[in-house]
Parts: sequence; C-alpha cells; structure tokens
Amino acid sequence: MPPRGACCARRSCRETGVNAPDPDHAPHAPVLLTPGPLTTAVSVRAAMQADLGSWDDTFRTLTADVCATLVDVVHGAGTYACVPMQGSGSFAVEAALGTLVPREGRMLVPSNGAYCERMLQTLEVLGRSATRLAFDEREPIDPDRVDAALLADPSITHVGLVHCETGTGILNPLDAVAEVVARRGRRLIVDAMSTFGALPIDLRGLPAEAIVGASGKCLEGVPGMGFVIAPETSLACARGRSHSLALDLHDQWRHLRATGRWRYTPPTHVVAALDEALRLWRAEGGRAARLARYRRNCTTLVAGLRRLGFETLLADEVQAPIIVTVHAPADRRWRFDAFYRRVRDRGFVLYPGKLTRLDTFRVGCIGAIGLPEIEAAVDAIAGALHEMGVDPTSDRSRSAHAFQAAR
Amino acid sequence: MPPRGACCARRSCRETGVNAPDPDHAPHAPVLLTPGPLTTAVSVRAAMQADLGSWDDTFRTLTADVCATLVDVVHGAGTYACVPMQGSGSFAVEAALGTLVPREGRMLVPSNGAYCERMLQTLEVLGRSATRLAFDEREPIDPDRVDAALLADPSITHVGLVHCETGTGILNPLDAVAEVVARRGRRLIVDAMSTFGALPIDLRGLPAEAIVGASGKCLEGVPGMGFVIAPETSLACARGRSHSLALDLHDQWRHLRATGRWRYTPPTHVVAALDEALRLWRAEGGRAARLARYRRNCTTLVAGLRRLGFETLLADEVQAPIIVTVHAPADRRWRFDAFYRRVRDRGFVLYPGKLTRLDTFRVGCIGAIGLPEIEAAVDAIAGALHEMGVDPTSDRSRSAHAFQAAR
Repeated sequence: MPPRGACCARRSCRETGVNAPDPDHAPHAPVLLTPGPLTTAVSVRAAMQADLGSWDDTFRTLTADVCATLVDVVHGAGTYACVPMQGSGSFAVEAALGTLVPREGRMLVPSNGAYCERMLQTLEVLGRSATRLAFDEREPIDPDRVDAALLADPSITHVGLVHCETGTGILNPLDAVAEVVARRGRRLIVDAMSTFGALPIDLRGLPAEAIVGASGKCLEGVPGMGFVIAPETSLACARGRSHSLALDLHDQWRHLRATGRWRYTPPTHVVAALDEALRLWRAEGGRAARLARYRRNCTTLVAGLRRLGFETLLADEVQAPIIVTVHAPADRRWRFDAFYRRVRDRGFVLYPGKLTRLDTFRVGCIGAIGLPEIEAAVDAIAGALHEMGVDPTSDRSRSAHAFQAAR
Repeated sequence: MPPRGACCARRSCRETGVNAPDPDHAPHAPVLLTPGPLTTAVSVRAAMQADLGSWDDTFRTLTADVCATLVDVVHGAGTYACVPMQGSGSFAVEAALGTLVPREGRMLVPSNGAYCERMLQTLEVLGRSATRLAFDEREPIDPDRVDAALLADPSITHVGLVHCETGTGILNPLDAVAEVVARRGRRLIVDAMSTFGALPIDLRGLPAEAIVGASGKCLEGVPGMGFVIAPETSLACARGRSHSLALDLHDQWRHLRATGRWRYTPPTHVVAALDEALRLWRAEGGRAARLARYRRNCTTLVAGLRRLGFETLLADEVQAPIIVTVHAPADRRWRFDAFYRRVRDRGFVLYPGKLTRLDTFRVGCIGAIGLPEIEAAVDAIAGALHEMGVDPTSDRSRSAHAFQAAR
C-alpha cells in the first residue's frame, strides 16, 4: 500500500507512488529545504483540522500512541519512557539537562558546532558544571579523545552529544561515543534533534540517559513540541531537581503517568500532526526506508551542487544526509540575500550558514520531499546563479585559500 | 462584512452571519466548552495548511504583524514590546517571572485559585522570594488587602495577579489592584491568560511590568505559544537574569528585535493560525464585541444550567464570562465521568473541576461559538441528566450543606 499523502510538494513524487499534485502548494508555499520547520505531507497538515480537548480521552489516546511509537523508534520499550515537552527542541534539551543532570554533576560536551555550543550555554545558565572538548567543525567527535577526557576527570558524571550537528550537517559517531561513556561508567544525553527517526539509534545496545528529539524534523511533523526518551528509573529519581517548573521533566512524566494527560496545555494540533506523521513514517517502511530516501536526496543534491561548481564544507564520509553546508562562491557578484530571494521565487527556501569563520549557506534534504523536488531545487539554484551572473567555479583558488586559512 | 469563517461548530451561527455548517466538525470533533484548547474557526485551522520557513521573510512579517497586533490589543504601542514564547501559557508566565523579577526581588501573590498557586509554585522553583496573600476561592482579590500587605512589607518589589482565575472562573479587579501597586511604587505582572482579547486591559492607564497571554484562549487561535507584553525598558535591562536559556525573555526579545526572527524553532503553524485568529478578532469588532459575545454565551449558559437545577459556584457579579464552575448534584446517581461521556456523545466536551474541597465541574463559554452552540450544549446536558436519572434539584439541602461546610 502506498503511503497516503506521503508526498507533498509541487509535483508528483515518483518514490512514494503518489501522483496527485498538492493543490495546497501554491506559489506562496515553497518547498522548504531547511532543517525544520520542513515540508510536510498533506495528510499531516490535514490532521490539524480538528480541535481536540486536552482532557478528553481522544487526546489521551493520541498522546499515549505517539509516546509509545516514539519509544519504539529507538527500541526502548520496557525500560524507557517518552516524555513530551511543549516548545521547540531546545526546550526539550534544556528540560533533559535540568532534570537528569544533578546540580552537583558535571557534563563533558564534545563540541564541533553551534548546537554543541548551545548545550554548553544551557548548562551555564542552569548552573551545571561543564567541560568543553573542542573539535574542528569539519571533523566528527573522536571517541578516543572523549575516553581520554573521562579518564582524566573523574568528576565528570555525564556526556552530552549532538548526534548530527545541524550547524554544519556533520554526523557524530553515536555508538562509539556511547560505548566509551558506558565503559567509563558515565551517563549519556543525546541531542538527536535532526536524526531521530532517520539515523540508527538502538537503545537495546546503546544505554543512554536521554535521547532528545522534536516533532518537526525527520519525523516530518510540524514544529511545536520536543520529547525526551529516558529510563523510567532515571525519571523517577529526578524529583525536585529541575531549575524550572515548566521544563521539569520529572513532573511532566509523573503527571502523564498518573493521568494520561500533559501537565499544562498541550499543543493539541501539533500532537495530532505528529501522530499522522508517525503513521506515514511506518507506512514508508520506518527508519531504514526514511534514511534511504534522505540518502538519495542528499547524494542527488550534492552531485547537483558540485555540477554547478559549488564546494561542500564536509567530506562525504562525515556528511549526514540531513543538511548540506555549501561554501559561498568567491565570485564578487555573490550576495546570499539576492541568491536566496531568487531561489525562493522559484519555489525553494534555503537556509543561511551557521559558521562564524566561513561564508556558507545550507540546503536541507529532509522533509516530505523526494528526488523530483531535489532535482528541481538544483535547477532553481542554477537559474538563480545564471541570473546573478555568478559562476561558483570562478576564482576557485580564492575559495580554496579561504578554506585553508580557516582550518 | 461578516467575518469569514468566524463561526465554527456544528450548526449555523446566527451571530456571525455565517450559515454554512462546518463539514470538518463531524461527530469525531465535538464542540469544546473548555478554557483552551477551544473550538476554533474553520479559517484559523485552514491557516495551518502552509509550511512556512522560520527564517523566511514571510514568517518574519507574520511574526511582526502578530506581535504588533497583540501590543495594540492592550494599547501598549510605543512603550511596550510583545515577546512571543514557544510552549503553553505557563511557559510564558515562568519566562516573565524569571526574566522580569530580579533574583533579589520579592513577589506578593494574592491567591484565590489554582493558577495563583501555580504562580507561587513557579516562584518557589525559580528561587524567587514570594508572599502568599490568601483569599477564599469564591471571593475576588481585595485591593485594600493588597495595599495593606504592600504597606506592611517594603521588601515586596512585585505583585503577581491572575486576571481571571480559570480554576473557578472568578474575575479579579485588575484596574483597582494595578492602581494600588502603582501608588505603592511596586511592579505588576498580570497572568491574563484567559482574559487577553476579551476583558478590558488598557496599558495607557494601567502601568504593568508584564501582561502575559496565550494563543489558544480568548484570541481563539490554537494552543502552542504564549506571549509577554512588557515595557522595552524593562526587557532591555533584564539581561542575564533568567534561570533558563529557553525561557529567557530578554534573549528572545533581543534576538527578535535584531533579526525579526524567533531565537529557536518557532511553532510556525500555530503563529499562522494566530495571525488569522487576530484577523477574525478585528473583523468581529475587536475586544468589546468579543466580550459581548462571551457575555451572551455565559448568561445563556448559566440560565440554562440553573433551569436544569444546577448551582454555580460563583455569584453572578464576580463571574467572568470565560468559564463557569458548577456544583456537582448531590444526587447519588451522579458520576462526573459518566455524565462527561454522555454529554460528549452528544457533541460537547466539558471540563472537570479544579477545586480540592468541593465536587464541581466546569463549562467554558469562549471559543468560536455562539448562542446556538450554548443552547445545544444545555440540551445535551439535560439529555445526559435524564439518561442518568439524575435530578440536580433533588436533595438540594445536602448540596447547600456541602457548600456551607466548605466556606
């Protein structure tokens, strides 16, 4: 059975077998090539057409179903609970840090990008001790250096790992880091924001104190809630630890467990959309099928960009099939804002870079999109370059020089 | 011009002039008589049919428009800024308390219900000193007692007032309390969650440090974001004060001001729904017209419930036209759960009581509903009582006794 409404954007999607063009995607609704909010399926948005009472059994069942599925995505049934949290993914990360890291704890954060830095910033505001282990933004976290850092400092109780650093799109070696953390008897909190549902995370072989995700990324729901998958035992003994009432994961877990209801007003429409998004996820074939689609999207995107003369920031072997960071052309006529607008006028929304030292932009390859959208996006990018008279291959030496200088 | 789609529920709405029944409100989508999430208009839900990029100009404009309108609702233009906040209304209240009350401050919270108590609980978790000024749940906050408390304790820097205490539905005298707080040189933070957009709040004559509201209440958007209206000067000098990164109002304000964008992933669909909800609010005639509709709903509801023999918790003169708390009948056959299900089967979702000492339930009168829905709801309640064989007038003495004993 082809997944109902799994395709989304302006044209038929060969991969999902859905042929009908989506009438909602008029010119005012371009395809989002961003790390979330992203392009969602018609049926996901349609799921937001009902108003549900937050106290009602219908919504309790919806919440229970969504949470059970989210635990299943990472194979955590029996030991782990899913605690949903209102707000963006960063709210859920802060809730996990504030509730699961004791006030006298210390967290090691191997950092190779903006979201690792945000984790460090959060810990600082929360008054939790933290140690930063710095890596180059183009290199994945090295488990051996994590091991050495844990060995050197027995006061470290937790490690915080960003699975895919969305600031660049680099994939960090979750399993290898988890193995080191477990071997050294520490606890691991994973920001899996942009990998949950697509990249492999298997709690049966990877003990973790928390896996944090959000509704609007690889699960292809709409933004508005995050969630934390954590061991019931850890949640149970975290009472009174949180710095915040709203972001108290223990309290949310306890209330949900006792009543089946969220503690404060839940984003009911967002939850309904996520429930439908998870149905499509299963219908597509689950995590492996989703990853395969994203890989095809990514490979096609990178090949297309290189054909136009662009250089990607990352080597292919460390590139997660989530978002691709691209060097801005050295061409003097290049202006990102103008480029962005021209690509947008053609129906595709790109994302700015998030690096301080290099001029880059980003193109996402996740969402309810397939090869037709990716190929059309490359065409749109080519058209914008042509209009601007920019040739990414021109003055390549200057670009290469900038790349070297920044290393 | 009649507001497009301002009506919503199962039947035509005489008040808004919209005659077409809403095909979306099939039996699986009952009318919500709750304090939010509530029944929204068709066009509000339709506004969630587009995926918007959070970095894109379309969404920046949307955010700016929504914030400007929210400031205008309380007449704060020129002095006040609106800072949106991901999450439920309680997240926005916590953000306001944590960012605007200095760590060495002390807040007086006059309390006559569950949401006043939540404010006190939030302050406790945040480590802010607080003084509770207790009132009976059936009596509005007395400004004279607030005045005496401020006079007695010069260490109090702020007062936290819940405008309509949604736990019971009681309206607290905002203007009189604000006058006292200003006269005593203290600062006022108002939880206006269930009044914003309907009850009068005018910052031109009522200086406040913060007015906190949410998308899914009287503005009739969907739940998923709150907002804080605060003086720019107060926001500007609150840097580094917050206990939380995600809930740091200063940081959100500064980022929004500098870039036009939310700090972390915004609930784009929820914001789009609120934008449309605000358009309908204006089309209906703004705050006064909305209040008039809610008053008609409330009067009709209370009259209908009394006709059936129910007693309301509050005297009419202190009842806000938002949500009505009703005493459970003394009849032995009364079971709230069974009653709830029977009323729900007839297409209406009620809300449980939130009082610890008395057996009550609640019926909301806000949302995109008018007299047809309220009258049908009273009919549904009558039908459920009849089926259960419950007569609210029977054994009234026991009910009256319980009422007296609890005073």
